[in-house]
Amino acid sequence: MSSPVTPSSTSAAIAAAVRAGSPLVQYLTNFVSMDIAANVLNAVGASPAMVHDAHESGEFARIASAVGINIGTPSPSWVDGMVAAAEAAHEVGTPWVLDPVAVGATTYRRDIVARLVQHRPTVVRGNASEILAMATSQAGGRGVDSVAVSSAALDAAAELARQLSTVVVVTGVEDVVTDGTRTAVVHGGHAWMPMVTALGCSATALVAACCAVDDDPFEASIAAMAMLAAAGERAGARSEGPGSFRVALVDELALLDDVRLSSVRVDRS
Amino acid sequence: MSSPVTPSSTSAAIAAAVRAGSPLVQYLTNFVSMDIAANVLNAVGASPAMVHDAHESGEFARIASAVGINIGTPSPSWVDGMVAAAEAAHEVGTPWVLDPVAVGATTYRRDIVARLVQHRPTVVRGNASEILAMATSQAGGRGVDSVAVSSAALDAAAELARQLSTVVVVTGVEDVVTDGTRTAVVHGGHAWMPMVTALGCSATALVAACCAVDDDPFEASIAAMAMLAAAGERAGARSEGPGSFRVALVDELALLDDVRLSSVRVDRS
Amino acid sequence: MSSPVTPSSTSAAIAAAVRAGSPLVQYLTNFVSMDIAANVLNAVGASPAMVHDAHESGEFARIASAVGINIGTPSPSWVDGMVAAAEAAHEVGTPWVLDPVAVGATTYRRDIVARLVQHRPTVVRGNASEILAMATSQAGGRGVDSVAVSSAALDAAAELARQLSTVVVVTGVEDVVTDGTRTAVVHGGHAWMPMVTALGCSATALVAACCAVDDDPFEASIAAMAMLAAAGERAGARSEGPGSFRVALVDELALLDDVRLSSVRVDRS
Repeated sequence: MSSPVTPSSTSAAIAAAVRAGSPLVQYLTNFVSMDIAANVLNAVGASPAMVHDAHESGEFARIASAVGINIGTPSPSWVDGMVAAAEAAHEVGTPWVLDPVAVGATTYRRDIVARLVQHRPTVVRGNASEILAMATSQAGGRGVDSVAVSSAALDAAAELARQLSTVVVVTGVEDVVTDGTRTAVVHGGHAWMPMVTALGCSATALVAACCAVDDDPFEASIAAMAMLAAAGERAGARSEGPGSFRVALVDELALLDDVRLSSVRVDRS
Repeated sequence: MSSPVTPSSTSAAIAAAVRAGSPLVQYLTNFVSMDIAANVLNAVGASPAMVHDAHESGEFARIASAVGINIGTPSPSWVDGMVAAAEAAHEVGTPWVLDPVAVGATTYRRDIVARLVQHRPTVVRGNASEILAMATSQAGGRGVDSVAVSSAALDAAAELARQLSTVVVVTGVEDVVTDGTRTAVVHGGHAWMPMVTALGCSATALVAACCAVDDDPFEASIAAMAMLAAAGERAGARSEGPGSFRVALVDELALLDDVRLSSVRVDRS
Repeated sequence: MSSPVTPSSTSAAIAAAVRAGSPLVQYLTNFVSMDIAANVLNAVGASPAMVHDAHESGEFARIASAVGINIGTPSPSWVDGMVAAAEAAHEVGTPWVLDPVAVGATTYRRDIVARLVQHRPTVVRGNASEILAMATSQAGGRGVDSVAVSSAALDAAAELARQLSTVVVVTGVEDVVTDGTRTAVVHGGHAWMPMVTALGCSATALVAACCAVDDDPFEASIAAMAMLAAAGERAGARSEGPGSFRVALVDELALLDDVRLSSVRVDRS
């Protein structure tokens, strides 16, 4: 049913295109992730721009190469800016990626996500409990960490992808990418990754950067996950804990090359 | 008058309970501290959630295991969110910790703190000048760094603890914890700690995490200070300046064990 | 036409004055730079205070030793706070530094900068495309990274300095400081600097810190650039990528001494 494919020549090509093209990635994200997400984007060669307010977010989305929208620390004026950016991105055909942080935790977040999905995200990236909450419109999950089991989440991801005509990325010990028909599982990374805050948010930013240079959001999402998996493995090998791991991860993202990327195992089915 | 007590078996037990229980800590904090406070919480095994807006902060406080409220970069809508969270926490009996950053510096901050203390913080954590300003309701201090001398601050801390029926933590070269009757002085840490921004804010987050797993906020506060003191000493031994110290501190918080925690000297009186 | 001057004894004296005086630097900055800018200020011995809201920003500017205003992630309430701080700083004669992040990218940013310059910044610090956009009031630039060539930017910088009676700092591979008459080029730094987010914002913060202790904003700006150049070179020599470079940069800023500062080449003309 699944056929291991290595190396991921497509992922290497997409990573190279990001570095060559330096796509402008507008990321409307939460306060916790601002620093690490911008540094992760810089490390892979993209150009981050954290332009969030409705007075300019729509205007900026029209010149951006991709947009990421992350609801981690929402408030009404930020949501207005997010909706304006999503609307503009959808209108001009710019890919945009939704990160529904802790969507199951409060009514407010469920309402925000309901507004945003009307503007048709190109990709939705979350952890298992967030994807489950979106797919089932139910409460659940305590915050940014997932408590859901994997198999139910996988079915929910594929169903959600079909419902929204989007690609869904579920990150965890393994990262799953699905468009409702095709599925890929990306292996790698390191056990310290969940102990570093906002790496999920940074993954969303990387998906946006890859969507900026490739028309297939399914392959772009796989490439983004492969970049993190490869860099994470190498960072783990030279770190002493989550603090030094985070630093090394940014280094390794900047040092990624085809050989390192091709060491990532990707199972497709 | 004081009896040195080592090892702090209670602190080790509390730290272990945080790691085992992974308490959900809602932290409404300033923009400077978002990243380091979340990483510090993750490192000790807690689960951070920076949920701040009044549209959800009260709802979230009802499911959180502990709440921290830090006024470092306040604005009206954030204060509304803080009040809603404090009110909800107090109502359902969830412990909450107040960090009155630079309360003496502006009228606005004194007014904010006056509103928040009506909802009975479980612990107040500040530096000497902040605690003095709160206890005396007077202006003073220039910002996040303390200029006050220690002995006056200690008297003020005990008085404040009695006034508010709370535990007061005064951090500095030594950290003092008092409930107005009992007092403990926690030794350790490193000279680079004051050069790393938002470690005080991170200390507040750790106090909240410890209060989530222990009913005695006095012992919980001591445990939080002991964790920072132990990790800080070890981090200092392998750092070259405040940049690498900060990274190593997160590593060492993740690597804390009973032996390391029991090396912290705590004087009780 | 230009006469190399080494060592920069003035820069060393200014850096020493920052460490000795620990000036209180109020920085109203964007969300991405909060952490690194505060840590950079701490590392050189200044005392950062991120006080932004109009309820206190003007009051605080009256007690600050210098003010920095950075429009990187603007919204209406923040702009109100920025204007209040700029107005108060100008009124009491406190030096203030403007960082017109991505001013060419949106109409909103051009309007904000137009409001702020009415309060006469002491120094304007930007990259080449930002300075060009300010000088010509034209759109251009995609965000925080410069796409403009250097010679046109230099003419624009001198013209802008004369127009506004300010000092203009253009950062890039080399950093240029001009007051419209005098010009200095500061050499040094490292190729990883542009890959670390918010180092430009941190440079602005350093300029403010140096202006707090020296009456000549031209020499203060040179000193700030020399500090970054010296620390950047040393950090680059012991880093493996942009992640570890950023950490080492904070270390090296804390370890700066006269010998290291005097190794920076400054061409004056």
